[in-house]
Amino acid sequence: MMGPRFTDLVASLPATVPFVGPETQERARGEEFAARLGANENVFGPSPRAVAAMKRAASEVWKYGDPENHDLRAALAAHHGIPAENIVVGEGIDALLGYLVRMVVAPGDPVVTSEGAYPTFNFHVAGYGGELIKVPFKGDHEDPVALIEAALAHEPKLIYLANPDNPMGTWLPAPVIQATINAVPDGSLLVLDEAYLEFAPEDTAPPLDVGDERVIRFRTFSKAYGMAGARVGYGIAATPLIAAFNKVRNHFAMNRISQAGALEALADQRYLGQTIANVATARARIAGIAEQNGLSVVPSATNFVAIDCGADGDFARLVLAALVRRGIFVRMPWVAPQDRCIRISAGTEEDLDLFAAFLPEALAEAAGG
Amino acid sequence: MMGPRFTDLVASLPATVPFVGPETQERARGEEFAARLGANENVFGPSPRAVAAMKRAASEVWKYGDPENHDLRAALAAHHGIPAENIVVGEGIDALLGYLVRMVVAPGDPVVTSEGAYPTFNFHVAGYGGELIKVPFKGDHEDPVALIEAALAHEPKLIYLANPDNPMGTWLPAPVIQATINAVPDGSLLVLDEAYLEFAPEDTAPPLDVGDERVIRFRTFSKAYGMAGARVGYGIAATPLIAAFNKVRNHFAMNRISQAGALEALADQRYLGQTIANVATARARIAGIAEQNGLSVVPSATNFVAIDCGADGDFARLVLAALVRRGIFVRMPWVAPQDRCIRISAGTEEDLDLFAAFLPEALAEAAGG
Repeated sequence: MMGPRFTDLVASLPATVPFVGPETQERARGEEFAARLGANENVFGPSPRAVAAMKRAASEVWKYGDPENHDLRAALAAHHGIPAENIVVGEGIDALLGYLVRMVVAPGDPVVTSEGAYPTFNFHVAGYGGELIKVPFKGDHEDPVALIEAALAHEPKLIYLANPDNPMGTWLPAPVIQATINAVPDGSLLVLDEAYLEFAPEDTAPPLDVGDERVIRFRTFSKAYGMAGARVGYGIAATPLIAAFNKVRNHFAMNRISQAGALEALADQRYLGQTIANVATARARIAGIAEQNGLSVVPSATNFVAIDCGADGDFARLVLAALVRRGIFVRMPWVAPQDRCIRISAGTEEDLDLFAAFLPEALAEAAGG
Repeated sequence: MMGPRFTDLVASLPATVPFVGPETQERARGEEFAARLGANENVFGPSPRAVAAMKRAASEVWKYGDPENHDLRAALAAHHGIPAENIVVGEGIDALLGYLVRMVVAPGDPVVTSEGAYPTFNFHVAGYGGELIKVPFKGDHEDPVALIEAALAHEPKLIYLANPDNPMGTWLPAPVIQATINAVPDGSLLVLDEAYLEFAPEDTAPPLDVGDERVIRFRTFSKAYGMAGARVGYGIAATPLIAAFNKVRNHFAMNRISQAGALEALADQRYLGQTIANVATARARIAGIAEQNGLSVVPSATNFVAIDCGADGDFARLVLAALVRRGIFVRMPWVAPQDRCIRISAGTEEDLDLFAAFLPEALAEAAGG
């Protein structure tokens, strides 16, 4: 009995799981976190209209979801003023990134990203045998010039760029993004991850141009629409690329409840506006808490704020550990010099009261005081 | 602007979409189906406890689901009397089949299945470049002897066997399945799809043996638990194979609402018993309707019944088309001689009243009467 024979590629992949959820930490702690501020979730939640739609859909969940996501794609098309043929809906951006990588990355193919950028993208690239070429951040921003230089040198299948960025929350203005799209070498595809775009200032995103075969843009209902646990993301790109997703995607993967919820969430733009205001208030509060502790923050166009702990990564890791011990779930960037920061999601007033109460203790403990 | 460069494999895949959902047909018809009896969905739906849990979870959906599916795996482990380490939970069996095929099938690798068996498995095998070797059904059953003979001849990475079977609804007794497992050649893995098992007689499934590296067994909340649109499936296998899923799976793919619903659905075994009784009643009704029309049915251990229309595939396709035109959504097997049948999901009394009313017309129309 020798068991299954894995492919050489899969046999070579590490068995470690790089994704530790807050529930895992809670089980290890033996109690729930008092404030959940680490996963860039949006505590302000979905529109009440979306919640009502999901509750209605719960008793209809004996039906499979529509594999074409017709109604949601039509609504997104109307919302963005583009044809539905240029939109693919999937079970979160993570799943769509996986399908995209699978479609273009063969073992050994180069892919360009930034050191410290979104790790799930890297997980997919490694999972299909791609070779990751990483360029450093520049001043806490992803560096589009360095990304393009690396692309010209390596002719990668994909170039990953998040705007706004995770984990720093910084953003690049639309003209810089458009110039980056324009500089994509022939045969490369820019993966423009705009998961946090709704939180960002006007003129962060260049206009959608669905005829442009050099870029695919990803959006989600997980962040500004407050539906992370519902798994609804979408991609916008030229028709041939969107059509190709049908070759590999899991056609019946979409949750019927989520389809119904996303449709109503999109329709309730007034609630979205309230959420964006709530998040802006929370960001300002986080900046205020940082200032009260003699710290500064990195300006953010997302629903989280990176607080510069004022020293190196070892110090920030001590601060983070002290917060986690006190029941405040936070995370932090994982490469220097960004790892001088801890990353705090926009929380409720109560969440941030707790954070404000415990941060001084955590800083003192980290300083050995 | 040349666009992205697809891998040779993906470039070679057909662009056609083999999955047409009932909603697509409804849009083409311009009205909804009066009875939805084609997708093997379970109209009796989830337990009210599961519905209540999903409604509660809807307002908590701003949180990601637990990527480890800890609570659901623990509950499934207790239910089946096996360790949680032998269970992988995923976004439906379809997704888990995709991950499994990806883990073992490299381009050119042989895979054995039955002609006319579950097409999504074939979609995944083709999508990773595997070579499908198909053996015919035998007397409307999948033929385990032929599957093993093909496996001995071709040394496939995977051997697919559904018990009970889709699309015929037939089943093999546990001793035959155990003998098949025992005959799996070294280096092959039996994919035992037990999606419909809860509807089947006792002694359809051999006991779970989580030390046996020759088999992975798939179960789901889509069928007997009535939660197709929630996308929750699971696999049971030896620890090394279950652990390997972590190398490739989309760790945050599980819907938080679905996790909550599945947990309660599993806990409500009394409701499951009612559903199984309801389905048995509906199966008997379908057999009665067939008999009233001078037709016979294939004995079924699932929540659907194949009605033998008494002639060839062309005739059955005419019957099906006539039913669909009358607002009755049904499907049928796609290879001869099984395509002499149409396949009717266990419906409500009202659904089956409609079916009973329209079947004589459909048969007459197909006969040119």
